[in-house]
Order: sequence, then structure tokens, then C-alpha cells
Amino acid sequence: MSVRAGIVVTGTEVLTGRVLDRNGPWLSEQLLALGADPIATAVVGDRPDDILRALRFLAAEGCELICTSGGLGPTADDLTAAVVGEFQGRAPVLDEALEGRIAEILRPLMSRWPDLDPAAVLASNRKQAVVPEGAEILEPVGTAPGLVVTPAAPGASTPTVVVLPGPPRELQPMWAAAIMNSPALQAVLRDAREYRRDMLRLYGIPESEIAATLRAAEAEGIALGGLEITTCLRRGEVEVVTRYEPGEATAYEQFAAFVRARHPTTLFSDDGSTVDEQVFALLRGDASGPTETIAVAESCTGGLLGARLTERPGSSQFVRGGLVVYSDEAKAALAGVDRQLIERVGAVSEEVAAALADGARAALGADVGVGVTGIAGPGGATQGKPVGLVWLSVSHRDGRRLTRSVTLPGTRADIRDRATTVALHLVRRLLSSSDPG
Amino acid sequence: MSVRAGIVVTGTEVLTGRVLDRNGPWLSEQLLALGADPIATAVVGDRPDDILRALRFLAAEGCELICTSGGLGPTADDLTAAVVGEFQGRAPVLDEALEGRIAEILRPLMSRWPDLDPAAVLASNRKQAVVPEGAEILEPVGTAPGLVVTPAAPGASTPTVVVLPGPPRELQPMWAAAIMNSPALQAVLRDAREYRRDMLRLYGIPESEIAATLRAAEAEGIALGGLEITTCLRRGEVEVVTRYEPGEATAYEQFAAFVRARHPTTLFSDDGSTVDEQVFALLRGDASGPTETIAVAESCTGGLLGARLTERPGSSQFVRGGLVVYSDEAKAALAGVDRQLIERVGAVSEEVAAALADGARAALGADVGVGVTGIAGPGGATQGKPVGLVWLSVSHRDGRRLTRSVTLPGTRADIRDRATTVALHLVRRLLSSSDPG
Repeated sequence: MSVRAGIVVTGTEVLTGRVLDRNGPWLSEQLLALGADPIATAVVGDRPDDILRALRFLAAEGCELICTSGGLGPTADDLTAAVVGEFQGRAPVLDEALEGRIAEILRPLMSRWPDLDPAAVLASNRKQAVVPEGAEILEPVGTAPGLVVTPAAPGASTPTVVVLPGPPRELQPMWAAAIMNSPALQAVLRDAREYRRDMLRLYGIPESEIAATLRAAEAEGIALGGLEITTCLRRGEVEVVTRYEPGEATAYEQFAAFVRARHPTTLFSDDGSTVDEQVFALLRGDASGPTETIAVAESCTGGLLGARLTERPGSSQFVRGGLVVYSDEAKAALAGVDRQLIERVGAVSEEVAAALADGARAALGADVGVGVTGIAGPGGATQGKPVGLVWLSVSHRDGRRLTRSVTLPGTRADIRDRATTVALHLVRRLLSSSDPG
Repeated sequence: MSVRAGIVVTGTEVLTGRVLDRNGPWLSEQLLALGADPIATAVVGDRPDDILRALRFLAAEGCELICTSGGLGPTADDLTAAVVGEFQGRAPVLDEALEGRIAEILRPLMSRWPDLDPAAVLASNRKQAVVPEGAEILEPVGTAPGLVVTPAAPGASTPTVVVLPGPPRELQPMWAAAIMNSPALQAVLRDAREYRRDMLRLYGIPESEIAATLRAAEAEGIALGGLEITTCLRRGEVEVVTRYEPGEATAYEQFAAFVRARHPTTLFSDDGSTVDEQVFALLRGDASGPTETIAVAESCTGGLLGARLTERPGSSQFVRGGLVVYSDEAKAALAGVDRQLIERVGAVSEEVAAALADGARAALGADVGVGVTGIAGPGGATQGKPVGLVWLSVSHRDGRRLTRSVTLPGTRADIRDRATTVALHLVRRLLSSSDPG
């Protein structure tokens, strides 16, 4: 029997779009990994009625477990603990021991903000020690404690509500601690069903082609009925995610083999790895070869490619650095691109992309150089060079080179982000093939 | 009378956290701007039952308007149109004229992907022309049409459901077109109440201090009862957003003046402008002075600061470029930082930050240089230099300079992102003061 789970994300700043919610997706992943079945995430503002209604909706939908995020702060609009108490029929009480522990946490913080009125800070945070009577306390990671709250009504055991703070860096360790330590949370997860989840990633193919592949797989007699397959486009790649019970593993293997055979060049990952991870491994030189150092020279992406290459710890082993050559002067001065070349063929061109790749390599003494130059828009299009046109080149010290152009759709931000994906795939192709042609 | 509105975001990839939802927040902002009252966003997977239940939840909560995003694609898991039809009591019918228009849209797309089987593509996309009988069609922006669907039941006029595609670049123009052209959507929005929304942004202050300010304002007799005030921490800044009806404008002005007087140095925006926009205006030299060109040399942020400075179109007027000096070799070779200095004081130091700022300025011939060097973690901490320590320096051709260190909390990604915010505030302070001291 599967455990239905729901998530309530609170916060007017999230509901109204000023802040992107990272907690709903993260909690959903965690619940899936534990074998629960997340059925919905409700995002509501800081109004207590809306929080209460969201809890009742998820309870009515059969959720045995509900996680909330946010609304545990010191301000008056932080009301989640009180609302969950009301929902479960538990009155608010001041937990004095908890208040003391929060005060201990605040002491060093207050020394960082010497102008604060200590009494005001302690009053703000006494509120955080008011909890539903009988709730399990999850110790604060920041200053806000979390809660695990079961119904007060005799005989009712579900839904169990896990109340977590809004900042992801507090929520995530607190959830991990709750899994380890909370008897009430452990009790509700005891019946969770085991699921597997596997992902195929393809690049350079439209999503509609995957729909055709699914139909072709069924026509070949592969039993897809027990596989919950979803596809989505993400940063220019198609992701095919399949969730299945262990008994369906053979069907999944047949399906994955079918996709592999039908899309041999566009399927680049069948083990969950991202192109970022593959490029990281290729540059670091894991099993596949020696360490290859890399340098970039980027124009329209303005630093995004350098930032993406250094997202992971350990990238300093192979990332030499980069040149953000937003102006033509910078292209010439930093990457050594011939000014006359730029005047002749334009800054967004095959020749300049190649010169940027070589210039980055030379300026930083790297094995691999990447050049990116394009028109991110919304202005800047010229005859024959539309917004979204990006030229990319990757060159290696040993003479190998891949250069291509793409015309990317979307907004300025989409085009800039997507261009970094194209660049990573070029690096992957260059480094994973001895003759990339 | 206010119009209650709800949003249903569909997509297992969103529910399970592989893709961040941008549509719920965006639609919520749009609804607020139109005077509607968004009460909840429900995120559900691609399972028809869950979509249907989310629609029923929002209808039961009194929503007169529901917007959905996603699930209009060509694959078999794209079911939103059918579910909304069922919810409103309207049978699915093939709209042959629409099918023809979609085929027209697909023609150039198919020429870009010459290996596709045309029959498979057309079959995939015939599905997109099956719509609830009697629904208003919103013309495709990509290949998927949207819908406005009212209840079929006689006498029922609400909820009206607006069905929009998942990709933001399709959803956003389609919504704008629906506002202009859909009689059913216009009818439900006719009763929307007028709201105002204003924002104060503060930097260098903890969120709890704002809670104390709210209490102090009330103690001074400022009537906050008609103001819906929410605060949140975002990228290291505190945002105070207030929503109010026009009759409460005086109360809001009193409140804003109170915050201004109490937090004169930390309040940096009371007109909705972001620090990015303020820095953009200061560099471009709007009313405030001449254009100031800028160049950056960044280590731990790996390109993020350059990327952030070039997010807006028009930044090429003043962004000369940047140096991603991830390795010490790059700090020396590109930014001219003395190797012996690095050995003596360490790469993460006041001196190296200052040398990076000057080196960026010199290498790119800019008026303003920014240097960022820090320990993004999780490794790399040394005695006296914890993870999160970042030194930043901003220097001007005319000799002005601001240098500071911060110790930022959070993950590697948090630290890198937050460091760019600190850098922008330093640039703002340097350029908005003749004697930053």
C-alpha cells in the first residue's frame, strides 16, 4: 500500500511570484525516494484561512502525510505552527525550554548586528517557541524549530503533519533529522511502497519524437503498462523519467534498450548523469583519460558558462578561468581576436567563435578552449543574424575542434542559459570522441 | 467584490522537482495586477485524477477563475485539455480547422528536423486539436492551443478555466492575448477589485528587525490594519511588500515614511527598483551622472557577477567585460595580481580583492573595477578563513574604493549567488556617494 503525501508551501512571497519555491520540488523528491506518493503541492499565501484550507484539501484527498514549509519566522505573518495546531486540534503553548535554546542560538547572531534592540529580538523570537501542545519538536537549524504534529482526536492517526522552515538550508537538514529521529514520521512512512526511478536524457531531438518512440515501443510488444513514463524539455534537453515497481524492472530494461537503439546519437545519459556531471568527469579525467584543463571566452552568456563550469566543488582542478568579452574591445584585448576579422565577418560568426576558443586557451594556458558569441536579444538582430543566433566553438590543444551555430528560441534569459547547454554538449562530444569529425 | 483565483500547475516533472515552476508565480503576479485575489497554486503530476481533484479543490474554495499550465503537449501524458473538459462537462471534439493551423505551424519545424517521420509528428499533434466542445480557442504560440472553458451546466457561470501551455515563452504571450481577446475571461475579471502593491527593499539588516519596526509603527499610532504587509528574505535582501486598497494610501505613506526614518542607511529602494536596476541606471548614467564603464574579476563566483551585470538588454553600453580568475595562475596572468602577494596573504584576502578590482579595470580599460574572491565551499576553509568568507572590492578610476568582507551562510550555490548581491551593493554605494568613506 502506497502512502499518499502532500506538501503545503506557505508564503505570500512565493505565491505572488517574488521568490521561486525550491522546497516543494525538493520535498517531493525526498518523498518519492522514501517510496511515498506525492500527489500535490499547494502553494498558499500567509493567510491562515488559506493555509488551513490547503491542509484540509490534502487530508480530504487521502494524504497520510503532509509537509509544510515556511511561516515559522519571527514576524507576525508567520503563522504556520498555529494553523497546524488548529488543524490537528492542539492548543498553542509556550515551550520554555525551547525558548531558552533559541535564545542561545540568537546570542552570536546578535553580536553580528550590534545595533539591534535585544529585547525586540527576543520578543520576536519568543513567538517561535510557541508550539502546538504535544507536538514533537524538531531542533532549529537556523532559529526556527520545526514540528511533527499528529491529530489530537482519539483514534485518528493521520494525517501526520511535518512543519518545516522556509529557508532551504534550514529545511533540508531538518527533514533529514526528522527522518532519523521522529517516531511519528517514521510510523507513517513504514508502509511506503518501494519504487525505482530511472532517467534517460537526450539532446538534439524534439519532445514529440519521444512520443513516437513510445508508440513504436508498444507496437513492438514492449509492456509499458507498468511503467509511469513522463517526458519533459529542460534547458534544451529531453528528459524521460520512468517510475516503476521492482517487478517491472525487465520491462524498463527493454524500454531503455529500445530507446538506446532508436536514438543512438541523441541519447547521452541513461544512468541519471547530467551533461554537467559528464563534462566534469571528462575534464577531471576519471576513468576516461587525463585531466584536461579548460578556459572559456564568452560574449552573450556574460559569465554564465564559467559559472556553470564552476558550480561543482572540485572544479578548480581543471577550470583555469574565463574571459567575459562582452565588448569588441575586450574580444581583441583579452582573447586576441583580430579587430579586422570582427569588422569583416561580424562578432557573431564562426570565425570569431573559433578565435575566442583559441584565445581563451592561449590566455589561460588551458587544454580546451570554448568560445561563445551570439545575439541574446531582444535587440541586436541584423540581416541574416536573428535574435537567438549563437556561434560556439570548442578547440583542443591537440588540434581537434568542433564549431556550430544554433538559433535558440525564447527570452534573453532562455537564450543565454540554453547557449551554455549547447556549449557543454560540444565539450562532451569533443572529449568523448577521438575523431568527432 | 474581489475575484478569487486559483492556479493549477500540472506536470510530474514540476511536482517531482526536476523542473522549477515559473508559471505559477508569473500567473499569480498577473492576477494580482488585474485586481484578482490569487488564493492558492496547486502543483500536481500528470495524472488526470490529481488534476481533476485540484480543480475541484479550487472551485470549492470559491475560485471564480482558475488558470492551468502545462499538459498540452503532443505526448500521451499531456491530458489537461481532456480533464478540464470533463470538469466543465464538455465532451472532447476534434477541431479540424485548428488541426490544419497546427499543421501549418509544424511545417517549418519539421524541416529543421529532417529525420522525423512526418506521419508520427502529425499524429502526435492531431491530439493537440482535440478540445472540449464549445471552448474558446487561444491560438498556439508554439504548437499547442490554449483554451478558455466555462461550465456546460445551464446557469453555472463559474469557475472559468483558462488552459495554458507549460513553456513560459508560450504561456506568457498567450495569457496576454487571452486578456485582450477572450470574452469569457474578460467577463470574470470585470468584478476584480483595484489593489495597489508597493515594495520596500532593505539590505544589511535581519528580517527580525522588520518585525520590530512593524510593532514600533503600530505603537506610534500608524494604522496598519488595512495594509497586507509581508516580508521576506531574498538573495540577502529583505523585501517588505504591502498590498492595499486605494483608500489606504495615506496609511501606507505613513508606514513607508516610518521605515525610511528608522532605517535610513539600509533602505535602498522604495519604488520597486531592484539593486540590479539601480546599478544599471548608475552605470548607464541616467539622470545621475555620466556613463561609467565596468569590468569585473571574479574568483569564487566563477562568472555569475558578469552574468548578472549583463542580464538586462543594453548592458553592453557599459559592461566592458570580465575575468574569471578561478586559478591563482589566472589571477596573476589576467588581472596582474602579484604572485608573491597571493602567497603572502592568501587568495582570499583584502589585498587580493583590491588587486583584482584594479586589475579588471586596467585589463579592460573600465571606469569601475570589481574584485571578488572567496571560499564557496564546501571544502577550502583554512584557519581563520571559513567557508562563506568572501572579500570584495570596488575601485574607481578616480581613486575611490570600497572594500569589505562578508561571511555568507548557506550552500555553495547560496554563497556564490549572495556574493554577487554584496558586490552590486558595493557598486551602488560607490557610485551613489561622492564620499563613501
